Amino acid sequence: MSATWSDWLAGQAAAREAAGLVRTLRPRASDDGLVDLAGNDYLGLARDPAVVEAAGAAARRWGAGAGASRLVTGSLELHADLERELAAYVGQPAGLVLSTGYHANLAIVAALGGPDVLVVSDAHIHASLVDAVRLSRSTLTVVPHSDVAAVRTALEAADGRRVLVLAESVYSVLGDEAPLVELAALCEEHGALLVVDEAHGLGVHGPGLVRERGLAGLPHVVVTVTLSKALGSQGGAVLGPQPLLDHLVNRARPLIFDTGLAPAAAGAALEALRQLRARPELTDLVTRRRHDLAATLGVEPTAGAVLSVPMPSPQVAVAAQAAARDQGVAVGCFRPPSVPDGVSRLRVTVSAGVPQADWDRAVEVLLAVVKEHR
Amino acid sequence: MSATWSDWLAGQAAAREAAGLVRTLRPRASDDGLVDLAGNDYLGLARDPAVVEAAGAAARRWGAGAGASRLVTGSLELHADLERELAAYVGQPAGLVLSTGYHANLAIVAALGGPDVLVVSDAHIHASLVDAVRLSRSTLTVVPHSDVAAVRTALEAADGRRVLVLAESVYSVLGDEAPLVELAALCEEHGALLVVDEAHGLGVHGPGLVRERGLAGLPHVVVTVTLSKALGSQGGAVLGPQPLLDHLVNRARPLIFDTGLAPAAAGAALEALRQLRARPELTDLVTRRRHDLAATLGVEPTAGAVLSVPMPSPQVAVAAQAAARDQGVAVGCFRPPSVPDGVSRLRVTVSAGVPQADWDRAVEVLLAVVKEHR
Repeated sequence: MSATWSDWLAGQAAAREAAGLVRTLRPRASDDGLVDLAGNDYLGLARDPAVVEAAGAAARRWGAGAGASRLVTGSLELHADLERELAAYVGQPAGLVLSTGYHANLAIVAALGGPDVLVVSDAHIHASLVDAVRLSRSTLTVVPHSDVAAVRTALEAADGRRVLVLAESVYSVLGDEAPLVELAALCEEHGALLVVDEAHGLGVHGPGLVRERGLAGLPHVVVTVTLSKALGSQGGAVLGPQPLLDHLVNRARPLIFDTGLAPAAAGAALEALRQLRARPELTDLVTRRRHDLAATLGVEPTAGAVLSVPMPSPQVAVAAQAAARDQGVAVGCFRPPSVPDGVSRLRVTVSAGVPQADWDRAVEVLLAVVKEHR
Repeated sequence: MSATWSDWLAGQAAAREAAGLVRTLRPRASDDGLVDLAGNDYLGLARDPAVVEAAGAAARRWGAGAGASRLVTGSLELHADLERELAAYVGQPAGLVLSTGYHANLAIVAALGGPDVLVVSDAHIHASLVDAVRLSRSTLTVVPHSDVAAVRTALEAADGRRVLVLAESVYSVLGDEAPLVELAALCEEHGALLVVDEAHGLGVHGPGLVRERGLAGLPHVVVTVTLSKALGSQGGAVLGPQPLLDHLVNRARPLIFDTGLAPAAAGAALEALRQLRARPELTDLVTRRRHDLAATLGVEPTAGAVLSVPMPSPQVAVAAQAAARDQGVAVGCFRPPSVPDGVSRLRVTVSAGVPQADWDRAVEVLLAVVKEHR
């Protein structure tokens, strides 16, 4: 590498080091014995025998890859089945499956947005939606977190432009629920389209909060989901009216210029969806565990499966995470700049997939670690 | 949907209709009997029994999904194995696997670019790299296709800025080879970094054209690949020096804010890579078939596995594609705005995965169709 580039990379690395913000990959062994309270496999379906078997069966039937863009020969009946069942479950007219949740968010915003579009985005919105807005070259108004009055003000200033309002049903970092009913009413009133990312709502709230709050199927509310969290697989989807999806098929570059979702991932997600429908006790267990754990740790229960435990500093957060890990419990740790409010925190995922004995032990470990570090 | 949005969508749909450019998804059955000369499974590895079995085995061992971002608990030893073997094969120091090739291109350009960076991009570059530049907010200079003198001029105007030069080893639409040796020399001379997308070079040219042209391991040449074409799976990777990959781990939002590549896809890609290394006859067969087919159809042989057959109009191209399909042969059809030069064309993929008898029949069908429509 030239001195220009290698010096710049070295400078960036030194700055990370100085700030105590070095991130490294730590590849896991398949038998590492850790209780995983850090990931997003909220219902434990990634390891469900039927889901795993469906991944293998789909690969055998359809091949290891889709082989082409969905616009060429990479659309499979398997994708169509998944789209139909997903849409029916979350209560939307139709669905379009993409390779990642990130692709799904890029696709809808980049295809609907543009220089003549106003995007009103919550301040805590996921990185993929932030990137999507930039890609779309829309005008962006960021409103304070879950501030309905600020959304109203932004809509009143739209001045005849088409408007997208972006929210997550359950926000990633704080785990709080968006004021969906109020946002949907505002969007209806102002002719705007509300795009709700259900990444953390699907599964944890059965068919998601849009449906739970009675908003499913309203023409001005569309949904994106990921297949890689509660559904334990990989991929994403946009769920909404067919004319909108037809537009995406024609215009969304993250769909058009990408290979279709691998059959194993689509097959696993479809089986996970069927498990989710057939076993409401999975959702119930997550609900019970997140309330119990919140009470035990003395934090607010969240709307999602992830509890947030504030820590006094990034350094203490890292130390607490390491202490839990030393006792066989993996939890997440969020530090600036990944947290919208600058507060470092442990991020503890409640999963229905953890066997009860492991769960009980993990709760004990966490209680001790949090007491010691807070 | 509000009248604002539904009217706009209807207008967009009408414009597509009027232009004869409506794209629709056509989901395939697993047993549709079509000879697929439209996809990108160049070596037939998507259907290879060992590759398919590896997908299922990886799902059984690691689960249906990675369960979390690679920065949290979603990095698996399986990813690390794939990264090590991929890097060794293409002759780069290290590798970083992402969920799609699109993610890989977004990641490297978005993490290295910025308002103070100049990106010099070939006019025929893939959509994912175009989007990546926009995301990065770099200054962009687009140079005419494979015009080395224009790249030199752009580099001379860089004025001390860090510079990325973007090329594909084999371009997607025309199938021609980039002047990699000349571009690498220019980048060395000017302290720029050459990013080569080997999406269509890997496998078709064994370890890719960067290595074939003696450029592998040069510090100013880095590579991105997709796992969804010659490797028959899903995913992408950035291959280059470790300090660069460390930077991506810390800064590349399409890595950080995405679930790790699904185990089945990683396992399949790893087995496909091993097959590719062990069976050079796959690459040889693609080479022989593309030369034979080019001679038969009277078109230029390309550097990649995709032959381009110019058609007199978009309508004729579509009719020719339909005629081939009626006879059981799927080929691609590229029309504006997907073609950089405005010429509609059939796009015929040569794959080593098509059995010889099917291949012979497909060649006959194509010869007749092309004669009738050109």
